[in-house]
Amino acid sequence: MDSITVNDARFDLRRAVEADLPALVELLADDPLGQAREATTLEPYRAAFREIDADDHQLLLVVRSETTAIVGTMQLTLIPGLARGGAKRLLIEAVRLAANVRGGGLGAALFDWAHGYGRDHGARLAQLTSDKSRTDAHRFYRGLGYEPSHEGFKRPL
Amino acid sequence: MDSITVNDARFDLRRAVEADLPALVELLADDPLGQAREATTLEPYRAAFREIDADDHQLLLVVRSETTAIVGTMQLTLIPGLARGGAKRLLIEAVRLAANVRGGGLGAALFDWAHGYGRDHGARLAQLTSDKSRTDAHRFYRGLGYEPSHEGFKRPL
Repeated sequence: MDSITVNDARFDLRRAVEADLPALVELLADDPLGQAREATTLEPYRAAFREIDADDHQLLLVVRSETTAIVGTMQLTLIPGLARGGAKRLLIEAVRLAANVRGGGLGAALFDWAHGYGRDHGARLAQLTSDKSRTDAHRFYRGLGYEPSHEGFKRPL
Repeated sequence: MDSITVNDARFDLRRAVEADLPALVELLADDPLGQAREATTLEPYRAAFREIDADDHQLLLVVRSETTAIVGTMQLTLIPGLARGGAKRLLIEAVRLAANVRGGGLGAALFDWAHGYGRDHGARLAQLTSDKSRTDAHRFYRGLGYEPSHEGFKRPL
């Protein structure tokens, strides 16, 4: 659907399809926090994928290197709301880049693209939460203009 | 659609309709942070309301006291996702209770109801962010079982 170029390397960005699931789950699990909480079979992810795909406020993005395979993912959710003068939000979740493409500017380029996607769909605010242990990620988000203005609370249901 | 009883007072919970907008905007603005960032006309809220209402993953909830008027609101968003074994999330935003019903247990009862709504729709995780200045709210959320495990980042688009 789109592409970005970082240091002469081209990356294709497109909506995920079900055939991407093995690679996406591998990316989610290849992570200090993810390895403890991701499942070892694809089954639970298939149903989740179909729900994401059926919801037109969701964009599960796949980042593909021109020469190799899937190297990144993020999930974007457009959330209309009344607060802040009726501001629509872009929620960014489940951001992962493969180890071999980190640190080269792809992350920043991907967020630039995501912010443009949000603006194109009328969002005036981007928001995300990041586990407090991910201090490198926090530095990265601050560098992109994000303010750690909020406490992020979670609770199992 | 539903009701909760707190200390012998009954509160009706239902999906917001457009006629609720003046009361909802008043609730959003009657708040230390809201008063600085809410608009003074209804116009920007009408378009936002229609978008929320058209999205079946959204529930903009109105809390009505049996005897008086609208005394509370919260916005619930169901977000399917791959991470955490394909866990669906319940995002809770824009929670407001009128000053005259605070501190009496209505907030906790409302969150109980919201958690049940999330579970009924397959969510396994509830999440919310709260401005770091809202320390009373943080105590309240911790009391409900929420862990402040994440940094909450926001960025204008």
